[in-house]
Amino acid sequence: MAGEDRVLAGGAKYIDFQTDPSRYRHWKLGVDGDVATLTMDVDENGGLFEGYQLKLNSYDLGVDIELADAVQRLRFEYPDVKVVVLRSAKNRVFCAGANIRMLAGSTHAHKVNFCKFTNETRNGLEDSSENSGQRFITVVNGTAAGGGYELALATDHIILADDGAAAVALPEVPLLAVLPGTGGLTRVVDKRKVRRDHADYFCTIEEGIKGKRAVQWRLVDEIAPNSRLEARIAERTKEFAAASKRSGSGTGIALTPLDRSIGENSIRYGFVSVDIDRAERIATISIRAPETPPPADIDGLIARGASFWPLQVARELDDAILHLRINELEIAMLVFKSHGDRADVVAHDAFLDTHKAHWLVNEIRQYWKRVLKRIDVTSRTLVALVEPGSCFVGTLAELVFAADRSYMLIGQKQGDNRPPPTIELTAMNFGPYPMSHGLTRLQSRFQADPSDLERAQARIGEAIDAEQAEQLGLLTFALDDIDWDDEVRVFLEERTSFSPDGLTGMEANLRFVGPETMESKIFSRLTAWQNWIFQRPNAVGENGALRRYGSGERPLFDMTRV
Amino acid sequence: MAGEDRVLAGGAKYIDFQTDPSRYRHWKLGVDGDVATLTMDVDENGGLFEGYQLKLNSYDLGVDIELADAVQRLRFEYPDVKVVVLRSAKNRVFCAGANIRMLAGSTHAHKVNFCKFTNETRNGLEDSSENSGQRFITVVNGTAAGGGYELALATDHIILADDGAAAVALPEVPLLAVLPGTGGLTRVVDKRKVRRDHADYFCTIEEGIKGKRAVQWRLVDEIAPNSRLEARIAERTKEFAAASKRSGSGTGIALTPLDRSIGENSIRYGFVSVDIDRAERIATISIRAPETPPPADIDGLIARGASFWPLQVARELDDAILHLRINELEIAMLVFKSHGDRADVVAHDAFLDTHKAHWLVNEIRQYWKRVLKRIDVTSRTLVALVEPGSCFVGTLAELVFAADRSYMLIGQKQGDNRPPPTIELTAMNFGPYPMSHGLTRLQSRFQADPSDLERAQARIGEAIDAEQAEQLGLLTFALDDIDWDDEVRVFLEERTSFSPDGLTGMEANLRFVGPETMESKIFSRLTAWQNWIFQRPNAVGENGALRRYGSGERPLFDMTRV
Repeated sequence: MAGEDRVLAGGAKYIDFQTDPSRYRHWKLGVDGDVATLTMDVDENGGLFEGYQLKLNSYDLGVDIELADAVQRLRFEYPDVKVVVLRSAKNRVFCAGANIRMLAGSTHAHKVNFCKFTNETRNGLEDSSENSGQRFITVVNGTAAGGGYELALATDHIILADDGAAAVALPEVPLLAVLPGTGGLTRVVDKRKVRRDHADYFCTIEEGIKGKRAVQWRLVDEIAPNSRLEARIAERTKEFAAASKRSGSGTGIALTPLDRSIGENSIRYGFVSVDIDRAERIATISIRAPETPPPADIDGLIARGASFWPLQVARELDDAILHLRINELEIAMLVFKSHGDRADVVAHDAFLDTHKAHWLVNEIRQYWKRVLKRIDVTSRTLVALVEPGSCFVGTLAELVFAADRSYMLIGQKQGDNRPPPTIELTAMNFGPYPMSHGLTRLQSRFQADPSDLERAQARIGEAIDAEQAEQLGLLTFALDDIDWDDEVRVFLEERTSFSPDGLTGMEANLRFVGPETMESKIFSRLTAWQNWIFQRPNAVGENGALRRYGSGERPLFDMTRV
Repeated sequence: MAGEDRVLAGGAKYIDFQTDPSRYRHWKLGVDGDVATLTMDVDENGGLFEGYQLKLNSYDLGVDIELADAVQRLRFEYPDVKVVVLRSAKNRVFCAGANIRMLAGSTHAHKVNFCKFTNETRNGLEDSSENSGQRFITVVNGTAAGGGYELALATDHIILADDGAAAVALPEVPLLAVLPGTGGLTRVVDKRKVRRDHADYFCTIEEGIKGKRAVQWRLVDEIAPNSRLEARIAERTKEFAAASKRSGSGTGIALTPLDRSIGENSIRYGFVSVDIDRAERIATISIRAPETPPPADIDGLIARGASFWPLQVARELDDAILHLRINELEIAMLVFKSHGDRADVVAHDAFLDTHKAHWLVNEIRQYWKRVLKRIDVTSRTLVALVEPGSCFVGTLAELVFAADRSYMLIGQKQGDNRPPPTIELTAMNFGPYPMSHGLTRLQSRFQADPSDLERAQARIGEAIDAEQAEQLGLLTFALDDIDWDDEVRVFLEERTSFSPDGLTGMEANLRFVGPETMESKIFSRLTAWQNWIFQRPNAVGENGALRRYGSGERPLFDMTRV
């Protein structure tokens, strides 16, 4: 398959999701009072892989990693910022979208993972607007094509320069025989509510739509002549700032570099550890409880900064998941374990609950929500093993509920004098961490009978042993010591023997039960179609549109409608 | 690709969706008072194609065409039937699901179309239960595996024999590396509300689940020992009949054979005509208005029987769509036209509205709903051309709203003295024909501003010309005679030059705007994942699970998780 030989630029051994503004090659982050400006200025020669140039503000995963980092820092480090203006430093082009040569030369797995991350980043913009009050305004000064327009679609307000040239476009279908890959189709009709036949027209013309028609068809919010563009931006910025519910002030938390060491078969962070068993194709992710109680108050939290346990764990877990997703493609399964003192986890959850009205605590809760969502859409089998010494409490218990399967030991293990494992529910299991389809994991789990949810809620704060947990429906199987090793081993072995594709499709369907949101539609419907198309010879074959783009030769299509 | 050489059995030139009970090879339909029994007894040697045997009540498209026919006839021809018992004539097996050798040897397009039709048939069972009061009870007397269990899932009540052997199973993932293809995953968690980790377990074991656990996990409604099975069926049948809202009585309408002639490039029915332009890859579907007013009353309707215009057109259109879908794979586009006197169409719509409480009129309305839904999920570009002489009124105007694009002529054509075309809305555009996601086509169209819907509704009964229609948002483009030919030709030519796969994905996403239902999830999400998997070498490659099934050799998988 194309792209197997893709080489990371600069001799890198893996794709790194950690960065900071001092290292950005493609974005500039400027802050002035309550307004931040994120300027896209992609370095042509700064591609993540060798073999392509990022012309015309086109992007690859590396560009998006910086954007995700900037959006994250704006939330934590800039309490005063209420409006973010997204714009381009290039003349007459906003952003040309995902780089086509990068796509054409990428493996199927990389294309899919690239789209997943860019989707998460765009959802992150919307999440910031909705839950942190940082509103986004996009200034389209030239061409916003494909992923460029999709980026604009994820913001709250689009201003298009009215200069006879600047246009928005989704030219993927006519030009490349693929779909707009980061939510474009869904956001055009579901978010911006463009009429479906207008959307059909718009998505089948290469040149896009400009001027008044772009406003009439709801593709952008307004147009402004170049002479009045800056004044209009200033005006809108002021308006959006005035309407923002951002309540931050004072000092934020600096997202200092993670303490991380990546070995051949392990990744070690402060509280999170990943152990990779390549023969079994399993990555075990262990999370350690804090060793100190939470701070007494918000000042104490600010003093701890990025080492505040819930924030540090969220950041480490997020990085670990991203690393495994893109760098460890043969790992079939993520096995979650935890260890440490339950009491300190309980106390940290209580802190997150007590101070939820504080903007920084809100950010930490929102971040955990996003990390858990990232886990939900990770296409690896998710397993939780609840063993003696574990501390699956509240926030950490969400990992048990996110799992496709969970196993818990009844009683003790022979020769192990630690007490039988228990799990504990907190307020954090009943609201703050909805999945992308809007339900919490326990609501999803107990859809057959909502009284099961009430029954669980009544047990908040209790140490629940395996048999009780099974009876409450909180886990899949409770096993005693006699069965544990065999049953778990057989399950893991069997699961890793199945076709990864079948499992991906099955898990994507079973995890999201019941209602849908725009976000879940993007992940489970648009993504599925795109994955299909990313397999079709008309797009990715030797004579397909992606491969032939720019060659001067027209693609050759099999015209069978499927 | 595998299966290109598949030959239809018995020298057939195309797949025919028309049948009747006298020709059934796989099902027996028995009616006794208010109870019908549909007995599956698949003829091993009655496969639609050569090259496989339909053992153990496994099925192919031919088997499902008979089932769809039976369910349809039960609604129209058996007003008294309130309960349908679905069971098997085979010993110790209910149904083994879709035939694996058939699947393994089918083209990608056939697999996808096969799944689409079987999905529609299963949705049809649910539609009959919900909207016609014919409730379905499944008796699982042995193995109900894969598509066999999925068939049961589409019914209202599943009774499983409790004999230590009878079981329900979805073994596709572990056995075949594909997904249950007819809604199984979605119905297990969304309809039966099986807990997602239980569903995960259930969908990864080959042998399925039997006895008490099947009830506890909500996979079936009840179990009964063989000695009490018949008594239990009788009991439930009586209960369901008593609770049925079926209001039929007297004589139904016999679904007499269609008047149809299929030529090289055309299909002619009584009111529907299909013309195929193979060079342009376009099929034009023309619908002719009735030439007589509707009958005066229900007795008159019954006297007309299957030649009652709305019913005859629905049947002809349904057959045409199905024929084109499966037998004409290179046709890129369906262009809808209509012609005849608007007044008679208006009068027939009024009849359908006035008599909607009558069970037969309800059936005709429900059938139109299903035909229109079938069009919505057809993966061809849908176009409506509104020209002089056309009669896009009410029910027929839904074709304009179902289209991806619609064009209407402003004024007259040079040298054509017919008056300018108009379209007309009726009550039928505002409720009776919801799409699979629950909204009507006009609700979907006007989601940006519901007052547009009210504005359209206020115009019911008026002849609306092209400029008014465009202004009301009822069509995509109004064009005058000077532009018409060129614009339409350029659009058709350009559209048919695009990759069919890209268009399929795009249209599937743009057509279903806003909310989701179980049905729309099955079509646009589960189907998309299945299509993807149906392309993956792990399933369909030479060493994939589908191809190696039954060979004694284990499949070889690429273990990359995507």
